[in-house]
Order: sequence, then structure tokens, then C-alpha cells
Amino acid sequence: MQNFVFSNSTKIIFGKNTEKQVGVETAQWGKKVLLHYGGGHIVRSGLKDTVIHALKEAGIELIELGGVKPNPRLSLVNEGIKLCREHQVDFILAVGGGSVIDSAKAIGIGVPYDGDVWDFYSGKAKVEKTLPVGVILTLPASGSESSDSSVITKEEGWLKRGCGGPAMRPKFAILNPELTFSIPPYQTACGIADMMAHVMERYFTNVHDVGFTDQLCEATLRSIIHYAPIVIEEPENYNARANIMWAGTVAHNDLLHTGRIGDWASHNIEHELSGIYDVAHGAGLAIIFPAWMKYVYHHDVDRFVQFAVRVWGVEQDYYYPERTALEGIRRLQEFFRQIGLPTTLKEAGIPDDRLEEMAAKCTADDTQLQGSFVQLSQSDVLEIYKLAR
Amino acid sequence: MQNFVFSNSTKIIFGKNTEKQVGVETAQWGKKVLLHYGGGHIVRSGLKDTVIHALKEAGIELIELGGVKPNPRLSLVNEGIKLCREHQVDFILAVGGGSVIDSAKAIGIGVPYDGDVWDFYSGKAKVEKTLPVGVILTLPASGSESSDSSVITKEEGWLKRGCGGPAMRPKFAILNPELTFSIPPYQTACGIADMMAHVMERYFTNVHDVGFTDQLCEATLRSIIHYAPIVIEEPENYNARANIMWAGTVAHNDLLHTGRIGDWASHNIEHELSGIYDVAHGAGLAIIFPAWMKYVYHHDVDRFVQFAVRVWGVEQDYYYPERTALEGIRRLQEFFRQIGLPTTLKEAGIPDDRLEEMAAKCTADDTQLQGSFVQLSQSDVLEIYKLAR
Repeated sequence: MQNFVFSNSTKIIFGKNTEKQVGVETAQWGKKVLLHYGGGHIVRSGLKDTVIHALKEAGIELIELGGVKPNPRLSLVNEGIKLCREHQVDFILAVGGGSVIDSAKAIGIGVPYDGDVWDFYSGKAKVEKTLPVGVILTLPASGSESSDSSVITKEEGWLKRGCGGPAMRPKFAILNPELTFSIPPYQTACGIADMMAHVMERYFTNVHDVGFTDQLCEATLRSIIHYAPIVIEEPENYNARANIMWAGTVAHNDLLHTGRIGDWASHNIEHELSGIYDVAHGAGLAIIFPAWMKYVYHHDVDRFVQFAVRVWGVEQDYYYPERTALEGIRRLQEFFRQIGLPTTLKEAGIPDDRLEEMAAKCTADDTQLQGSFVQLSQSDVLEIYKLAR
Repeated sequence: MQNFVFSNSTKIIFGKNTEKQVGVETAQWGKKVLLHYGGGHIVRSGLKDTVIHALKEAGIELIELGGVKPNPRLSLVNEGIKLCREHQVDFILAVGGGSVIDSAKAIGIGVPYDGDVWDFYSGKAKVEKTLPVGVILTLPASGSESSDSSVITKEEGWLKRGCGGPAMRPKFAILNPELTFSIPPYQTACGIADMMAHVMERYFTNVHDVGFTDQLCEATLRSIIHYAPIVIEEPENYNARANIMWAGTVAHNDLLHTGRIGDWASHNIEHELSGIYDVAHGAGLAIIFPAWMKYVYHHDVDRFVQFAVRVWGVEQDYYYPERTALEGIRRLQEFFRQIGLPTTLKEAGIPDDRLEEMAAKCTADDTQLQGSFVQLSQSDVLEIYKLAR
């Protein structure tokens, strides 16, 4: 087991009607708030009114900035930074899913920074200071509500890049499963693929004898797999939505990572897809992850056997372990298909004429290898895109 | 699923040589430290010298108070409070196991409190303020290193009582599995029983459809069960010690509790045992828990079947579920025996002539029922003691 530091300080406020506590929680951190959100959904659902009411009752002034899109854009982040500076905002409240939260985090680190906020995403600057950020989560997927990172897309060149640091962890996150009842099945499924990817990226590691976190990862995956078809079929099943929502947070709050070295290649390989084609990140992962697995499973068949047996309940073939390993991958792909996700580029309507370009961008023309479980060069990444066709 | 707030702010610093970071971590909280510990073990092992050196290097003054015993005593807590006030101590560093940490927490809340510190334990006062506490853990068991509670024994009447509150959570906890290599097998096993009890007390709940935390509980138990015989047989197996140590912390950091209502009857029934007989708390739990299970399993056979199948790998009898449930309880008891623990009062050399007295104390003469999974009266508790003979 590797040495680690684990400190997840985000206060999780979970359950029915918890969004009404947002005024009290926010008042502990700021007096003038940027209310950051996406489209009209939170208006139509009445959530925005509830939030504004709670903030005003707590004596908080607010400035609004809506319009966050999936794969949140740098231009809006810059607009937010300007707005916060103009109005001397001291707290950012993100109401939405991962895109809104990531955008809020980017604004948060941009405000006290003299240079271009993209410096953090291009690796030129290190996150040290931020405006505090709070969250009301409406879409369980990214885990951003208690993670210390953010992913932003720069329109110029459609570069999708991430950055992180302990300061970026939200101060509180309010999670009411009822707010997720209205998420359409496809978006629900995309969220499920995203959270499963977060677990699997920790699971496939070269660090051995980390049985406890192996078990926690498998437990989280099995829970998601159990409740996923229920939330697709019965979108207003509170307990199923609640289990999925909490699993999505735990999947990415660093607990499952303790003592291990993860492999984020699949996320990065997918980022090139959703950066260019604006496909939902979760759908992209449902396409890329099985392809990545087929390409790398030879590296550690035992681990893929364990994955197949413990996560998917595959009957183990003790003499031909590869059969078991491949059956696990097949079950994952079948599961994604069952919940309504594309599992190939073709099914997602993505052409295969820019695979070389994506592989080159992903590996920065082969100067930057991807992954740690297996280190991937530009040509490896290209093969994975080809397997995903 | 129940509404919940989850906020575990203790910074965990885990791994080899991490005790050397104690100066830097402590300096963030205080300048004058009470170094609180138990017996000569940390002197003989050289840990005390390492800690003092690290603290002095960070410019920290220190006062010492050793002598904490298992089932830590109120009299020493009062001595610590006096010492802290006299020397204007601003931070308490606990170096040891759960008893030392619980004693440090008690001193921490006692210092800024005008009345008798026992008020917190007798329910007369509520914890609001404390001196900050840090931990170097040497015995994985109690989970006190990141929990928000403490259990103290008052010598007068040998009352063993707990109290808690968010303020009591340690600021940091340093966990180096190497420091646990020298724990003798019996004490190791007692720690294992304690951490398993913490999980099982959360597992047996009347809240249904909490599948995610069910899975996390089962994963934690299976991990402990897997690594327990290894740490008993190979006390210097780093990875096995590390998995056990981290599982012991997670077992009691509130994650496994989220959305559920736990049942702490077994802990309280055991407290009367170890309060009177000074038996190790973990050994007491190995005696009481199977007896409690035999007494209550009728209340929810399905849950005990799930426990048997998922935790112990019992082959399910679909027609006679009680057989499966009872086999799970038998396996638990057998496991405790296998790692060298007593599983009856007789095996622990405890006579059965004060069972009525313990049952009465535990339920405060039947005005106070124990448990929530099944609510237990004085006569129920007496039956459990009898089953444990």
C-alpha cells in the first residue's frame, strides 16, 4: 500500500428538503454570492426560487450567472471572474451538475489570480487560493461536489483540460435525491457511466495487496449496477436515486483512491472525444472504457478476473482465466447498452476520420504518455480509438 | 434512506515514517502541547523520542502525561485538565490507542469547561468547545482517531460512559502501520473484534433499501476477515497491517453510518462487562456480539441471511433461511475463536454471579432501553448475558 493523505472536508448535507438549508450554510462563508447555474431547468423546477429565497432570508446579496453548458467553457469562466471582481463577490454557489460545479471552481481560482485562469489548466500555475465554493447538486455523475478538481474546455482548439488542489474542494454540498427525479433516462445513464469510470480508474492499479480499497471499489460498483436499472425504470424511486447519488459522491471523494495509484487514461482519451464532438462525457466513457480494457487486460489478467468475478458475478474459469476476464469486459459493455448508452463510436454517430488527430492531441504528439496501469503512447491510444469504432 | 450530514474533517496521514511529520502538523494548531500516552511501550520502541524530537524541531514546548490505562479513568483525565490549565497548554497530542485518544479528548473538552468534565459523560452537558487534539495511532481498534466521541470510566461505581460532538474530532491522525508490528496477537485480535463491532453496529438497522452502505459495510468486514489471520500469523506483514489499520479507521469515521440508524446495544452491554471486570473491550465484544445476535436474529431473518451469505460466504438455504442466518452467527463466533479471542464469559474467566447487576446498570434499572434494531429491556439484556455464559 502506498503512503497517502486523506482529508475530505466537504460537509455533505444529504436528503429530502436539504436545499432549504442553503442560506444558513452559505452565510457561514460569505455575504455576496455568485449564483452560478446552467439552463432553464432549475428555473422551471422552482429550485432557483427556493435557493434565492433561502439566500435572501439569510441576508445574502446575490449576483447571477447562468448559461453553463456541458463541457463548460473558458469564455463563461472569464465572464464569471470579471463579474465577481466587479461586484466584490466573496462566495460562489454552484447549482447544477458537474459542469456548473467545475465552472464555479474555475471562477473561484481565477478571481484572486493575476494572470490568465487557463494557466492552471495548462499546468503553468498551481492552485493555492480560491473564493470558497458551495454546491447544490442536481445531477449525480462527476463527483465534483466533493472533489478537489475541475475540467474546463478552451474553445480555441477545443482543448479540454483539468486542474486540482486541496483548496478547490467545495465547503459544502447539498444533495437532495428528489432533485434528481426529473433527470431524463439518457442523462441518468451518462451520470452512471461517469461515476463507474471514477471507480474503475482507481480499481485498475499496479499496487498490489490493497484488498480493503479493492473491496470498497467493488462494493461501490455493485451498488451502482444494482440501482441503475431501477432509477432508469422508476425515476421517482427515492431510495434508488439516493443510493446512486451518494455512491456517485463517494466514487470520487478520494476514499477509494487511498493507498493506490489510479489510471486516468480512459478519462483523458474520452476528453478528446467530448472536447471535439460535444458528446456527453458519460456516453464517451461508455465507448472508451471497454475498448481500453480490451487493449490492456493482458497486462494483469488476475485483476480483470477479480473484476469479472466480484463485480459482475462471472463464474470463474480456473483453467482459462482470459475467458473470465473477457466475460467481465463483455458484461460491462452489455450493462452500458442495457441502460441506453452507446458503446461504440458508430452508435454515438461519431465518424472515425479524426482518430489520429485525437490520439495525437491526447498524447501531445507522443511526448506525453497516458496512464499508469499501462503506459500508452500515441499509437496505443490510436488502437484504443480503433477498438471503439 | 435517512437524511444525514457527513463531514469527516480529520486529516489522515497514512504510511511509513509518517510519525516524523508530527511537528509540522502540530505547529499548525498549537505551541504548547500536552503529550498524552499510556505505558512504557512508546518509550521502549523509541517512538516517544521520535515524537519529542519532531515537536522540538518545530519549536513546540511540551508537557507530558503518561499512564493512561485500558478503559481510561476519570481521575487521570482530571489530572490532565489541571495540568493543561496550569501550563496554558493549547493542543493535546495523543500517542497510543483508543484509550489514550479518548482520554485526550476528555481532557480537551474539560479544559475550557467550568464544571465537572463528567457532566459530558452523564448527559448533563453538551460538548461545544475543546482544545484541539491530534493523534499518533499505535493500536488500530477503536476508530477514535477520526471519530467524534470518547468513552471514559469513572472509578466510583465503575461507570463506563461515552459522549460525543463534532468539535471532538481530532484535527489530524497519523497512522503508520509499522508502529503496529509489535502489537501482541491477543491485543491485535481484540482490536479486530472492536472494529468489526463498529461495522456490525451500523449494519443491523431497520432502515431498508440502503444497499450502498450495506455493501460498504460488508466490504469492510470481508477485508478485516481476510487480513486478520495474516496479521496474527505474520505480525510484520506491512500490507496486511496497513489494510487492517485503515479499515479500522473507516469502520468508525461515520461513512458506513450514512443514511442508516445503527444499534449500539452490544457496545453498551459490553461496557458493563469491561467496566466491572477490566476485560479488554474487544474481547468483551467477541463474547457479547454473538450472544446478542442469537437473541435478536428472529427480528429480521433476511438481514442475518444477507450477513451470512455476503460476509461469510455461507451457501444460502432458500427454504430454511434460519439455518443460513444461524450459520452466519456460528461463523462469526468461530472466527473470533480462531484469532484467539474468548467467545463466552467462561472462556474469559468471568463469573456469572453479577449478570443481574450488569443488566440493571446497563438499562438504568429498566428506565432506559438499549438498542434500536431491537429495543432491549433489562430482562432482555439479562438473557443476552446468560446466552454469553
